[in-house]
Amino acid sequence: MRDLSKDHSLLSLNTATVRKQGDLLAIIEACSRHGIGAVSPWRDQVASVGLERAVRAVKDAGLKLSGYCRGGMFPADAARRSEVREDNRRAVDEAAALGAPCLVLVVGGLPQFSRPGSAPSKDLQAARAMVEEGIADLLDYARAANMPLAIEPLHPMYAADRACVNTLAQALDICDRLDPARSGVLGVAVDVYHVWWDPELDRQIERAERGRLLAFHVCDWLVPTRDLLLDRGMMGDGVIDLRRIRACVERAGFDGFVEVEIFSEDWWAKPMDEVIQTCIDRHRTVV
Amino acid sequence: MRDLSKDHSLLSLNTATVRKQGDLLAIIEACSRHGIGAVSPWRDQVASVGLERAVRAVKDAGLKLSGYCRGGMFPADAARRSEVREDNRRAVDEAAALGAPCLVLVVGGLPQFSRPGSAPSKDLQAARAMVEEGIADLLDYARAANMPLAIEPLHPMYAADRACVNTLAQALDICDRLDPARSGVLGVAVDVYHVWWDPELDRQIERAERGRLLAFHVCDWLVPTRDLLLDRGMMGDGVIDLRRIRACVERAGFDGFVEVEIFSEDWWAKPMDEVIQTCIDRHRTVV
Repeated sequence: MRDLSKDHSLLSLNTATVRKQGDLLAIIEACSRHGIGAVSPWRDQVASVGLERAVRAVKDAGLKLSGYCRGGMFPADAARRSEVREDNRRAVDEAAALGAPCLVLVVGGLPQFSRPGSAPSKDLQAARAMVEEGIADLLDYARAANMPLAIEPLHPMYAADRACVNTLAQALDICDRLDPARSGVLGVAVDVYHVWWDPELDRQIERAERGRLLAFHVCDWLVPTRDLLLDRGMMGDGVIDLRRIRACVERAGFDGFVEVEIFSEDWWAKPMDEVIQTCIDRHRTVV
Repeated sequence: MRDLSKDHSLLSLNTATVRKQGDLLAIIEACSRHGIGAVSPWRDQVASVGLERAVRAVKDAGLKLSGYCRGGMFPADAARRSEVREDNRRAVDEAAALGAPCLVLVVGGLPQFSRPGSAPSKDLQAARAMVEEGIADLLDYARAANMPLAIEPLHPMYAADRACVNTLAQALDICDRLDPARSGVLGVAVDVYHVWWDPELDRQIERAERGRLLAFHVCDWLVPTRDLLLDRGMMGDGVIDLRRIRACVERAGFDGFVEVEIFSEDWWAKPMDEVIQTCIDRHRTVV
């Protein structure tokens, strides 16, 4: 198991963690100041400063990426499939331009939430089929762009509106069906927030192996959790046994960045420097 | 599949659904008035009117029970194991006195939440082991009292503080280990709110078969869900494909009551008669 206590060279900051405190350029500048070597930006943050400026800022700062957030949201009415396809292809292109090691996929839930305006449905199995078709369709494009796709299973509380892939087993089943050769173009993003509760977790991480483990995200689960979306905890403030899960992921061969991704109204209300410094401290002491 | 549209003879009311509107006696009286033939009461509601009065009221109203809520909360400091044991044995006794067909088990999460005052822990695997030990310990007592135990897997968002059994597969694995003969003394309570998202759902219901399916609870999952605990939806108001899941459960042999269990500040704020009438209407039209 890697020793994170000496420095924070393996820390990556998911830029959503400080999204309310500044734009992507300000976040990149702060990362440089704090000696953070990697980030994982979101599409809307890139769009708001412009792709070219974002690419240049990342390069000028000497930053690596640990991922790009995000493609997906596949379930949609048939009439909107080409929109979904184009949207995801653009995400692949942006990820490639930024030098990301993978495009993270939040696959979408029922069509009316995944792509608002789509006809309401309660058919989760149909949504799951649309997700798999959507990933299959994107895979050739991603392969040509040399951009691995990382399916992120989301916590079951997001099954309806954000992602109907809700366990690591389910994500890996999709990987096995669409990329049985384990070519490296398809894998998973393991976020402790989404998977920590899963009785199958250890076994599925082991099953994934290095070839399928494309990203590893940390934060914490607070008790009580006051909001389903925006009340994630800083590492160490909740109940997730972070070190146990990281040991498991590293035993399976993962050797990439440990990405901090916290959506929290509380942390968004604090100064950017304080949040980043806390991430660094916790990375060294509790992750 | 059973036809629920003609009457509500298969409807059971979990008394928590109208807990804020009146005590257990008032709820039983309202059930009689609405022609509801079964209830599933909670221990605190029984305690507050007294067990004997509750038994008499149930009998006088000619009500059946679809379950008794609840035993469990097994994880605890070692020093408190006898307290946990006694508490659960009393729950078995009360269930027997009331004529319940099963005691529902909400198994508990980490010890500090399951039995407040216990030492804080992040070891979910240890909590799960304590749950299994606790059920094993209770099983002989339950068998002697002829009171089946129904393990209720709770939604993963309750893994830390309410129940660390979070999938039907996990609950059935426990059943298979502790009661391999399928004697009837151990099974599961399937609540759509907790399991609707599970990609393994159909397969696990099929695996459970009639012998392990001791209770079936309905409500709905709202989008957005504003509170993790107290924002359940009335059947038909959310995204769960209730009829599909009921078909699945009945295909597996379940022939018991369909129990309505809704924890909702919204529904607790409405008159008891309106809530019960709505339950009846929805039972006939969307369940």
